Amino acid sequence: MSQITNRNFLFQDEAGDLAAPGRAGRFLTGHGEVLTPAFMPVGTQGTVKGITPVQLRDIGPQVILGNTYHLSLRPGDAVVAQMGGLHRFMGWDGPILTDSGGFQVFSLADLRKMNEEGVTFQSHIDGSPQFLSPERAMEIQRNLGSDICMALDECPPGQLERTKLEVSMARTTRWLGRSRAVPLQAHQGLFAINQGGTHLDLRRRHLAEAMELDAKTPFQGFAVGGLSVGEPKEQMNAVLAEFVKELPADRPRYLMGVGTPEDLLFGIEHGVDLFDCVLPSREARHGRILTSRGRLNLKNARHREMDLPLDPDCSCYTCKTFSRAYLHHLFRCGELLGFTLNTIHNLSYTVGLTRAARQALLENRFPAFAQFTRTRLKTEEP
Amino acid sequence: MSQITNRNFLFQDEAGDLAAPGRAGRFLTGHGEVLTPAFMPVGTQGTVKGITPVQLRDIGPQVILGNTYHLSLRPGDAVVAQMGGLHRFMGWDGPILTDSGGFQVFSLADLRKMNEEGVTFQSHIDGSPQFLSPERAMEIQRNLGSDICMALDECPPGQLERTKLEVSMARTTRWLGRSRAVPLQAHQGLFAINQGGTHLDLRRRHLAEAMELDAKTPFQGFAVGGLSVGEPKEQMNAVLAEFVKELPADRPRYLMGVGTPEDLLFGIEHGVDLFDCVLPSREARHGRILTSRGRLNLKNARHREMDLPLDPDCSCYTCKTFSRAYLHHLFRCGELLGFTLNTIHNLSYTVGLTRAARQALLENRFPAFAQFTRTRLKTEEP
Repeated sequence: MSQITNRNFLFQDEAGDLAAPGRAGRFLTGHGEVLTPAFMPVGTQGTVKGITPVQLRDIGPQVILGNTYHLSLRPGDAVVAQMGGLHRFMGWDGPILTDSGGFQVFSLADLRKMNEEGVTFQSHIDGSPQFLSPERAMEIQRNLGSDICMALDECPPGQLERTKLEVSMARTTRWLGRSRAVPLQAHQGLFAINQGGTHLDLRRRHLAEAMELDAKTPFQGFAVGGLSVGEPKEQMNAVLAEFVKELPADRPRYLMGVGTPEDLLFGIEHGVDLFDCVLPSREARHGRILTSRGRLNLKNARHREMDLPLDPDCSCYTCKTFSRAYLHHLFRCGELLGFTLNTIHNLSYTVGLTRAARQALLENRFPAFAQFTRTRLKTEEP
Repeated sequence: MSQITNRNFLFQDEAGDLAAPGRAGRFLTGHGEVLTPAFMPVGTQGTVKGITPVQLRDIGPQVILGNTYHLSLRPGDAVVAQMGGLHRFMGWDGPILTDSGGFQVFSLADLRKMNEEGVTFQSHIDGSPQFLSPERAMEIQRNLGSDICMALDECPPGQLERTKLEVSMARTTRWLGRSRAVPLQAHQGLFAINQGGTHLDLRRRHLAEAMELDAKTPFQGFAVGGLSVGEPKEQMNAVLAEFVKELPADRPRYLMGVGTPEDLLFGIEHGVDLFDCVLPSREARHGRILTSRGRLNLKNARHREMDLPLDPDCSCYTCKTFSRAYLHHLFRCGELLGFTLNTIHNLSYTVGLTRAARQALLENRFPAFAQFTRTRLKTEEP
């Protein structure tokens, strides 16, 4: 798969209202340009569940996400490298971001043991002993050949007390330096991850530490981690409203693990450029559908004879081709095709939401767009 | 969806060697022409499992099969009719054949009670009481709007003793008359089903009875039922070798529930035009792959780092796009996409086999083609 060698990751904001924090921009990666704001569908094990690359291309994400933790365990990053890297392995030639594996080690793995060097843990698949360190996280991502790599962070639990959080963040800063020191492939960029929970002052201090490293060797982007992990929504939003705009304006900003349509709107409003979340695809597999007229539950018997698409405003393959009656039938039967068709729609909705937000930002009408969309999302089942 | 009203179902044989029983032909249905020999993928519940209509079109079957039993229980044939028929419901505008429901009632349903009128049984889904008769089987298929309907037959167990089989066949003949008497939609044709187990004389007698009915109102085709239900393969083949050529030459001949590539070759060799079987798609979901070089088991660790397509001679989407290493990975992870990609390949292989057989028949080189293919199928795992 062809790579662009003059990738620079430098973010250009083209939004109509440059005084507002919301950004509509673009940056260049090793596999093409990314228009933002952008939602990244999650392809944990080298596949967006149930979706072929042709279907994914049709859904139209700017970037997709692959999981370092899962791919390093199965099939193994060395195997992926031998197969020509993740792009070729999974048949996707657009930009790919890989996470660092940290979040999964802290949420999925068993018998975790941490020290300054890294984390030893047992694979959740076969119990085999594994080790993850900043150096190993970089090695895995170099093997995968993703366009955007994430530095390894320690992922503290959602509501960790402040003093313990500070200890954890100090380690994440040291790990950030070690991550930065590992050479990557020529086309790859590295994003730093900011921690600090809901403490604005800790986030600022952590960012200042990252900027010291950045002054020596610049990061290609900045991520906000450790949010959307169980804290009250108001606390998350309060941090975002104050903090995102303080991240370097000339680099992409990525809010990790978010989220719902409402969360995307809030993030975009405050200057976030990139999002990822399993929610739209996972919800789809459970028959919970996002539409421009509100949410609907496909399991509901009222759809049984409904000769309407999921979303009359949607032009995805599912909405162009099938009735709710058919999709209700597939869902009740547990048919594989139902998972695929619902996922195509929910991802098209979510990717489409960020695309529409971009257009609204370019045309300096984001507030009206966001208000209209929020109202729609609150309506009764459509 | 557009229907062809001048459908005639009359079979034209275009094979190079008209003296040989093998046929390469065509007939016209309500949704287009069918080139034979043809393998029909099975879409039990209104979907070929895991495959979208776009992917199905790419696989290229001439006809697909839908199951009367399943669709009548869920979503119900009245719902399908209300949604504009099965073609529109499932987004497939090519020819569809529906079975009569008999085989499933006799294999899946609980608490079966038979009498001359029909069969009462409990749904295998929710235990609800159900009734199937020749009239009801026709009503369901009229509601589904399939192009080819099957008359309801009693499906006797594989090795039923001869006297009991004769009683069952006599009922099937009476039911055939009742099926024929029910008006269908203008575009629909009706196929008769021949029973008689492995007794050639019983099959001949049963065919003679059907031909009496046929003389009054012609059937659009003839099916051979009650084979491939557990009897020794040599007995099945002995019947086919003698009997298929005795079916009316001007109507399509359909061997139900068959089968393996070897069985397709044998059937084609002896004059069968149509086949259906869940085997290629079911095997695909279990990682058992049919290829032009022999069968392979994707689970096998030898594929883990193999940068080759499943079948280097295959031009399906799966083979054009993905390595065995990737498909092995998806299979080991139980990823949905693996089921889809393996199914695309196995169906492409099987549909392609009948297409290649057709070409060989047209060019009067079927014996060499069949021998070559059989040898290939016997080779070690490729």
